[in-house]
Amino acid sequence: MTSSVDQKTRRIRTPRANASSDEAGLLTKPSDVSPETEEMKQFLDSLKYDSNGLVTAIAQDVDTGAILMQGFASRLAIAYTLQHKKACFFSRSRQQLWCKGESSSNFINVDSVHVDCDKDSLIYLGVPTGPTCHTGAHTCYYKRVDGADGLILGAAKDGRHKAEEALTTLYELEATIAERKREVIKEGAKPSWTRRLLEDPEFLCSKIREEAGELCETYEKDEGKKRAASECADVLYHAMVLLNVQGVEIADVMEVLRNRFGVSGVEEKAKRTPKSKLIDPSKE
Amino acid sequence: MTSSVDQKTRRIRTPRANASSDEAGLLTKPSDVSPETEEMKQFLDSLKYDSNGLVTAIAQDVDTGAILMQGFASRLAIAYTLQHKKACFFSRSRQQLWCKGESSSNFINVDSVHVDCDKDSLIYLGVPTGPTCHTGAHTCYYKRVDGADGLILGAAKDGRHKAEEALTTLYELEATIAERKREVIKEGAKPSWTRRLLEDPEFLCSKIREEAGELCETYEKDEGKKRAASECADVLYHAMVLLNVQGVEIADVMEVLRNRFGVSGVEEKAKRTPKSKLIDPSKE
Repeated sequence: MTSSVDQKTRRIRTPRANASSDEAGLLTKPSDVSPETEEMKQFLDSLKYDSNGLVTAIAQDVDTGAILMQGFASRLAIAYTLQHKKACFFSRSRQQLWCKGESSSNFINVDSVHVDCDKDSLIYLGVPTGPTCHTGAHTCYYKRVDGADGLILGAAKDGRHKAEEALTTLYELEATIAERKREVIKEGAKPSWTRRLLEDPEFLCSKIREEAGELCETYEKDEGKKRAASECADVLYHAMVLLNVQGVEIADVMEVLRNRFGVSGVEEKAKRTPKSKLIDPSKE
Repeated sequence: MTSSVDQKTRRIRTPRANASSDEAGLLTKPSDVSPETEEMKQFLDSLKYDSNGLVTAIAQDVDTGAILMQGFASRLAIAYTLQHKKACFFSRSRQQLWCKGESSSNFINVDSVHVDCDKDSLIYLGVPTGPTCHTGAHTCYYKRVDGADGLILGAAKDGRHKAEEALTTLYELEATIAERKREVIKEGAKPSWTRRLLEDPEFLCSKIREEAGELCETYEKDEGKKRAASECADVLYHAMVLLNVQGVEIADVMEVLRNRFGVSGVEEKAKRTPKSKLIDPSKE
């Protein structure tokens, strides 16, 4: 019940059924791309390729928002991605099509593709089936350069940010909670509030119930938006401390929500457990 | 108390004090960049610039995880960003330094910069002070190309995804809740669960208290990780419905958490309201 989130080796997903071992080790070939439909042709024609016939392609984790990697995509690579729902790029060093995971089996299953206003940059939004970076890191952006606190370059190494991933707020909070668990409390020193909660889960549970009540009161007593945001933050923070106690990651929670509501727009009712019927049971 | 989240014009932040009107309308010049420190020189030397002397630079919203825009950065643009903490790029069309916001005042205040394993791609992680896209959209990636549900290109327009931003799970859920509020219920038709909650906030509050209790019970009754993730998802979902009722965005909650814990690694105790002292009050 006490495993914490390791910042260095963040969330690695269980490979999906369609990321079979058959698919690994086979280099992606232009012949893997089916002929373009008229609709796809129109879209691919509309993009603004650079002088090498490429646009930028950014792979992003749909649950955590983490930018996993950035590469470039040729027309064929984009068509492959749209057809196979796996992030595919054009390797500039090897001058060939490259489906991420073709040799490592660490695919990025693509839920949706988005194009920018200039039509020269794409987001592949999806779920990685393993570490994205060849170093084994969850994302290729694991090195922090500079921060608002004035730390320059490597200086952050000895600070709180042992991991230097580009964590968004929710995941930064999760990492902070994990660090509170790890830190050594000197004798006589007062532990942090988070540490106290971690060490007394019964008390933590009483706080969660209390904070949920206070969130409700912001509505019931009409306490205003600011207070509502603040109380919701309290609920979320305390719930996340309990997740840490139980060895659960917030990305697991996102996965539950995604499977219920679906980023694809399909509410996957079939997958719901009895308890989760509470969410939109009457909705098609 | 009933304003909902508009998907098309997502979160626009109040400009920070340092995004003053004095700074707008002035084109960024190489002379705005101070001489490189030795540490910065080492870092800038280590990057792998392309034949045009550029690396990719991706601006990401630290609270929502939204990829705001992608451009290219020259050595000077990176130095400017590190020194001024505002996202700066090299405009390939105008062949000059371009600090995002220099003419529109819609800056991206940079909290931290991260570099990828190949040293040819950067993330500028920060807070936008206004819409990033010249179209007025929150992000430049407002157009969805394709989805897991088989919709191709423009076909999603009439579906659930009126907005086609690359929303990560939490923000997709928020958009779904907002849509449930807007949708017209035909006479005799059964409203969705979300709609029922939206229309009966007292009942919603009773659900929030109940779900918080059930989350606690996953620990108290040792129900396992899966159940903990599921119950936490229930708490989060119901809390977000109440946020919608109160016209509060989940990004507001993230902002509260960021200001408490700070992505910069500094816990900004000074800014805490009395209530929020519950978070880490004893921690330096």
